[in-house]
Amino acid sequence: MPEKRLSELCKICSDNGFETTLDGPDMTVRAVNTLEDASEGEVSFLSNPKYISSLATTKAAAVVAQDGVDMPDGVSALRCKDPYAAITMAIITLHGYRKHPKWGVSEKAYIEPSAKIGRDANIAPGATVAADVVIGDGCTIYPGCYVGDRVRVGHECILYPNVVVYDDCVLGNRVTIHSGSVIGEDGLGYAPYEDKWIKIPQAGYAVIGDDVEIGANCAIDRATLGRTEIGSGTKFGNVIVIGHGTKVGPDCMFVGLIGVAGSAKIGKHVTIAGQSGVGGHITVGDDVSVAGQSGVQHDVEAGMKVFGFPAEEIGKARRSVMAVRKLPDWIKRVKQLEKELAQLRELVNENAKT
Amino acid sequence: MPEKRLSELCKICSDNGFETTLDGPDMTVRAVNTLEDASEGEVSFLSNPKYISSLATTKAAAVVAQDGVDMPDGVSALRCKDPYAAITMAIITLHGYRKHPKWGVSEKAYIEPSAKIGRDANIAPGATVAADVVIGDGCTIYPGCYVGDRVRVGHECILYPNVVVYDDCVLGNRVTIHSGSVIGEDGLGYAPYEDKWIKIPQAGYAVIGDDVEIGANCAIDRATLGRTEIGSGTKFGNVIVIGHGTKVGPDCMFVGLIGVAGSAKIGKHVTIAGQSGVGGHITVGDDVSVAGQSGVQHDVEAGMKVFGFPAEEIGKARRSVMAVRKLPDWIKRVKQLEKELAQLRELVNENAKT
Amino acid sequence: MPEKRLSELCKICSDNGFETTLDGPDMTVRAVNTLEDASEGEVSFLSNPKYISSLATTKAAAVVAQDGVDMPDGVSALRCKDPYAAITMAIITLHGYRKHPKWGVSEKAYIEPSAKIGRDANIAPGATVAADVVIGDGCTIYPGCYVGDRVRVGHECILYPNVVVYDDCVLGNRVTIHSGSVIGEDGLGYAPYEDKWIKIPQAGYAVIGDDVEIGANCAIDRATLGRTEIGSGTKFGNVIVIGHGTKVGPDCMFVGLIGVAGSAKIGKHVTIAGQSGVGGHITVGDDVSVAGQSGVQHDVEAGMKVFGFPAEEIGKARRSVMAVRKLPDWIKRVKQLEKELAQLRELVNENAKT
Repeated sequence: MPEKRLSELCKICSDNGFETTLDGPDMTVRAVNTLEDASEGEVSFLSNPKYISSLATTKAAAVVAQDGVDMPDGVSALRCKDPYAAITMAIITLHGYRKHPKWGVSEKAYIEPSAKIGRDANIAPGATVAADVVIGDGCTIYPGCYVGDRVRVGHECILYPNVVVYDDCVLGNRVTIHSGSVIGEDGLGYAPYEDKWIKIPQAGYAVIGDDVEIGANCAIDRATLGRTEIGSGTKFGNVIVIGHGTKVGPDCMFVGLIGVAGSAKIGKHVTIAGQSGVGGHITVGDDVSVAGQSGVQHDVEAGMKVFGFPAEEIGKARRSVMAVRKLPDWIKRVKQLEKELAQLRELVNENAKT
Repeated sequence: MPEKRLSELCKICSDNGFETTLDGPDMTVRAVNTLEDASEGEVSFLSNPKYISSLATTKAAAVVAQDGVDMPDGVSALRCKDPYAAITMAIITLHGYRKHPKWGVSEKAYIEPSAKIGRDANIAPGATVAADVVIGDGCTIYPGCYVGDRVRVGHECILYPNVVVYDDCVLGNRVTIHSGSVIGEDGLGYAPYEDKWIKIPQAGYAVIGDDVEIGANCAIDRATLGRTEIGSGTKFGNVIVIGHGTKVGPDCMFVGLIGVAGSAKIGKHVTIAGQSGVGGHITVGDDVSVAGQSGVQHDVEAGMKVFGFPAEEIGKARRSVMAVRKLPDWIKRVKQLEKELAQLRELVNENAKT
Repeated sequence: MPEKRLSELCKICSDNGFETTLDGPDMTVRAVNTLEDASEGEVSFLSNPKYISSLATTKAAAVVAQDGVDMPDGVSALRCKDPYAAITMAIITLHGYRKHPKWGVSEKAYIEPSAKIGRDANIAPGATVAADVVIGDGCTIYPGCYVGDRVRVGHECILYPNVVVYDDCVLGNRVTIHSGSVIGEDGLGYAPYEDKWIKIPQAGYAVIGDDVEIGANCAIDRATLGRTEIGSGTKFGNVIVIGHGTKVGPDCMFVGLIGVAGSAKIGKHVTIAGQSGVGGHITVGDDVSVAGQSGVQHDVEAGMKVFGFPAEEIGKARRSVMAVRKLPDWIKRVKQLEKELAQLRELVNENAKT
């Protein structure tokens, strides 16, 4: 791994738009680590104030932090308004992104003759590329991946082991999909007939936009008709389930164990925290933030932060939660009121007699 | 894809039990699409009233709708009491179900010599069929599937890429399993011993009934003893997790991200919406409907609709939710009562003095 | 399968620390089954009192039960304080653990020459072992597994079909991972920049301790820096999602569909029931028990039982739930109070006039 002087790291951060200055002696660092685990020659960061107590005992050579955070003796500070962005630059510089194995186009991959493979392709043994597939330049396809009939894959995509892309789906450029995720499986489309379910052919497909990254073990249904769409720049964690015909993004972030039912429309730059769900045919506006374990059952206007089940404006939802917490106290107060009212009534009646 | 006259589609729907009549000029259509996305030569449908505003602007040649829905000029109506069923027939007719690749029994599949494979089998390169497996006629097994020792698979089953069926499990006829789903893994069976967990051999198996369809990335435990059972005609969406020894169905529909713990008994034609759970050893009666994000912790009688956590009758559960929503108002009213009672008491005391 | 006399089973249980005595005639049994499904020559058990009514009609030859449980005529009792532990011993004795197929090191596995494979390895066709991997003695790796660059696997590990272990991760000894689970995928690590997300290289790895068993379709992120850690003896059910940098265990049990966000610290012997979540950077103490569908949003002290969202002490949380259930009644009582207070005020005013 490359070593860098702290002054070089500051320059890299600043050149990328995150103005960073060195406050303390310049020196060479070789890696980034947490405050707790850092050792000599490593640079660390303080972004979450929860960890400020670890600053006193860190063995890091330098720490990225905002102005005003005092450093222990002998620890250099890299001052940046956005320490998280600056340390990201440091991790990119010192650690870099994953280097993939180089298989070229393996003879042990199952590639249909009608498939078209771009330049510099890296297709592993045990990967399947089905008929009439088009794969762009510089793609890496790990073992156990299945790229179905007529799928189109853009340039520089990465499919980690055991990713499945069903027939006719489309991946943009620089799409990354982690292991076990499935794109374009049939949605839960059945017409009820008496007590049985008649399967509706799922004749549509799914489109994954440019620069989308999808975590492990997700499942994104194809549309019944037309397309399911994950907009460009969107990032999914693990076990995200998207129903048929739903449109998401661009630039959304979904954390994990999230379900969005079919035919929903999720705007741009929407964040959804873990274990939340969005109902079918719901519209969620741009820049909405959904807190964890929420259930969105009604349309949400752009810019709102929502929480709860059914999800509502987060401040209101929290007040409800707090009120529930205190409910046993309020019940006592109601009982007390009933008692006092009865006593007062008795008093009034007695007074009236006298 | 085949083209059809509207009159032919009406006849097909009616012949299948969904009486449909043409209201407007007959013409040829080639595909089904949504009201929003349909273009010339396509037939669409209005089933969910939410989309009625799209009717005025649709470019569809014809629309399936109930009586009484006014069509724009130049759009023919296909009148049916159940537009969803009729459009299903149209999708089946015009689009059809998926055509699978034809591998025959690939020489690049790993098939144990003791396995018995039925006629017209379609087993892909990279699929594994283990020892003493029996596979019926007309099955399609995609790459990356693993069919474990002694598994029995019925006729005309489809296992999409990377499906795993553990040893000794049984699939009925016409079972479809989507990518990444796992049938018959060990359940979470441990005997606690001091602070450790002793693994209980999971000596049972799992049985999947006829005509079951299972979505992507599900996990259905084998039983500790005896069998886990998914009854015939049941349909699962994605990421459904079924505990060991549980019996489900027949004819259930589970939407997505649902967990049913072990030894539960779910009746026939039960529907469970997304992100709901059912506790272990629970009995759920026939035709029960569980709303989304609910937690079933007690037995549920046949025919009930339940909601909430712990789930209860849906009307009651909704009233509780609404009451919680208004809780801050009620708290104000209790405070006001306390104040007024105090004032009245003071007044009574003063009156008494005079 | 081996047959055993009841007296032999008693001895085996007692020798393993679960004192068991025979109460009734000794005889030979060949299998363990549930009370409901047992037939002649089988031994059953009564552990959950819910099933006591099945005792009268069971066809089992013998039943493991605590003292004081009356047996029907002709059914021998195996008396043990912990029937669940005793029946576990019986299942281990009579059924045993799974026998894996024997592939040796298959020539159809994709094994990089730089990988080091221990003695008695059992690596299936279609499994991948990448560069510089070290695999211990006696490991079984099923088809479709991917063991990434530089991964270290201990002795006697079992990777069921289609398990993926990303580069640099470490598995201890006797680790079992069920199908479709993914270890060490990138976590959801992005630095926000305007409305875009800059990917942070996930430069850490994941460590799975000795004797850990992981269910199907789980996803355990690698750390951004340092390690994600699943402590020894921990058992996961299906679809457990662990965020980057989180430490769990030892000896925890997580049931299913559970998410733990990044940088959390879960103590030893913590149990988490289905569909619960733990927020990022949260500390959960030893021996904590989290009930199902809960959301842990604050640190939890050792030994606590918590429930709800946000999770709190289970007794308090249940009282809140019960209070919500009765909320409509309380609202009626508040309305009644308002009415009675108004009436009393009127009475007081009238009395004052007279």
